[in-house]
Amino acid sequence: GVAPAVQAQAAIRWRLSSSFPKALDTIHGAADVFAQNVKAMSGGKFEISVHAAGEITPPFGVVDAVQQGSVEMAHTAPYYFFGKNETFALGCAIPFGMNSRQMTAWMYEGNGLKLMREFYAKYNMISFPGGNTGAQMGGWYRKEIKTVADIKGLKMRIGGFAGRVLERMGGVPQNIPGGEIYTSLEKGTIDAAEWIGPYDDQKLGFNKVAPFYYYPGWWEGGPQLDFFINQKAYDALSAENKAIVGAAAAVAHTTMQAKYDAKNPGALKELVGKGTKLRAFPDAVMKEAFKQSMAVYDELNEKNPDWKKIYGDYRKFQAEQNLWFRFTEMTFDKFMQAQKL
Amino acid sequence: GVAPAVQAQAAIRWRLSSSFPKALDTIHGAADVFAQNVKAMSGGKFEISVHAAGEITPPFGVVDAVQQGSVEMAHTAPYYFFGKNETFALGCAIPFGMNSRQMTAWMYEGNGLKLMREFYAKYNMISFPGGNTGAQMGGWYRKEIKTVADIKGLKMRIGGFAGRVLERMGGVPQNIPGGEIYTSLEKGTIDAAEWIGPYDDQKLGFNKVAPFYYYPGWWEGGPQLDFFINQKAYDALSAENKAIVGAAAAVAHTTMQAKYDAKNPGALKELVGKGTKLRAFPDAVMKEAFKQSMAVYDELNEKNPDWKKIYGDYRKFQAEQNLWFRFTEMTFDKFMQAQKL
Repeated sequence: GVAPAVQAQAAIRWRLSSSFPKALDTIHGAADVFAQNVKAMSGGKFEISVHAAGEITPPFGVVDAVQQGSVEMAHTAPYYFFGKNETFALGCAIPFGMNSRQMTAWMYEGNGLKLMREFYAKYNMISFPGGNTGAQMGGWYRKEIKTVADIKGLKMRIGGFAGRVLERMGGVPQNIPGGEIYTSLEKGTIDAAEWIGPYDDQKLGFNKVAPFYYYPGWWEGGPQLDFFINQKAYDALSAENKAIVGAAAAVAHTTMQAKYDAKNPGALKELVGKGTKLRAFPDAVMKEAFKQSMAVYDELNEKNPDWKKIYGDYRKFQAEQNLWFRFTEMTFDKFMQAQKL
Repeated sequence: GVAPAVQAQAAIRWRLSSSFPKALDTIHGAADVFAQNVKAMSGGKFEISVHAAGEITPPFGVVDAVQQGSVEMAHTAPYYFFGKNETFALGCAIPFGMNSRQMTAWMYEGNGLKLMREFYAKYNMISFPGGNTGAQMGGWYRKEIKTVADIKGLKMRIGGFAGRVLERMGGVPQNIPGGEIYTSLEKGTIDAAEWIGPYDDQKLGFNKVAPFYYYPGWWEGGPQLDFFINQKAYDALSAENKAIVGAAAAVAHTTMQAKYDAKNPGALKELVGKGTKLRAFPDAVMKEAFKQSMAVYDELNEKNPDWKKIYGDYRKFQAEQNLWFRFTEMTFDKFMQAQKL
């Protein structure tokens, strides 16, 4: 009969450790979408429990946990691990890097996924793109940024790798967990903080303690999240389950960006309605940040052979993308954004 | 034992009819990706054969075929069927509509998929987003378009719905299958023709018979392809197979856009290298086309209640998207496209 045979097929149970709190229904939600899809496609025979940041591993301990096999998989932003090797950032976001669509193209149809997987193999992991936030905002500031000189001495909470660029501009990057940013800004321990975008930022209430909201987040033009899976655990899967994992990740990848796009406009309107002042970074600040970023990359090309190999491919792909996007995509978007609909 | 039980589970075999020729490895390829994923995830128990345009149904006969159940599913551009009801175009592209990312957000996280499925239910079909080309080019022209007056009398091959706008501008839209465009342009039977973008257009050799290549394709800022499945065939699937179909469609949806993005830049460079002259539509032409498009929509709102209901939601979503995209996304992209990488 059918029933005993179905039971004979061993159920698979995995644990997924997220670097994000449950409150981030956007990013944390992408891991839920992934797990729900795996369960549904496998008819309940493959179950993955999703654990929020800190539940079974610290937020930034997820790569160690996957590498050692203490959890089968993680959902994280690879650039958190640039301290292990700067190359992690190339699988996520680097200052003045690719936008969301370009990053996805590099991953699936360029050399991105192949090259990043070769690199992640050193950590006993295989990666799957697992979401993108789109271009993030440039953060919340207690005072306006009018010139490059205003960055001098600016104490700013900023995510990992971008701090190196801020430092070269005279800023003082601070590493502060999401839950502590509000108090630090309120007390004036820091002068500025970047997090994600309107929908997520509004939840943490930064608008109440810093009036100026800057754009664009030049250090995160299209940051990609990844699912990291322990290589041994992945290799033990059947061909069907491997295909299921890949497709479930693609669903999460696509719907997470869609969710950000759907949620951000309303949140932005609310923030502005409550008095938030939107500001574009001055061109001189953008240019100086670009210059300093390129200097950081030049140094890394000298020092880090993993970086050099992948960065070369990344930049070439990006240059060609920008060549093409500036014609029909940009012209269409610019025209539409100028219309009253 | 396991083996007999596996055999007892009936194999499912479906036929998918595509509106596109095999030579379009981009769009036709998305149906192949879908079928391969379904097969892999089901461990070979669910097989879908992909049939190119004309193989079992004419390219524009696929909706009738799915509705009647003579094939289980199709892969097509919904706007081909605007003659049945203009509402089909809202699930694909309308002049001055949403871009690719916005369309995906409306589908997955707005009301898009829900509303379009309610409409497609009238045709006994359920839909799944199945790819996007991104903003298309505005086509190939034997002579330059310098003023709105240059559109007067212009005989142009243009896809379906957009012809109504061209007509209002004094143009003469022509319905010509892909394979006959080249000869028509060469002979001068038509003055202009739009197809897709550099990668696909180059294959058909339009650059040899028309020197001017215009952008943006204002009638196709982010056209979405769809998988249409006969409702009865879909309902007969197990919960697992339904989940597999949905995820396989999402994989095809995401990787098709990625493929266009990866392939178009190289093709554009080659075309320009061979003498193609890139031209932006003059602002006056864009504005007149926008005005005439809005007039078409006003008329449709009066005449077509299906259209009116969905268009209202579409436009509201689009207006909010554009509000948000003009800040951090646009500013980031504009800055990057101005840099030498």
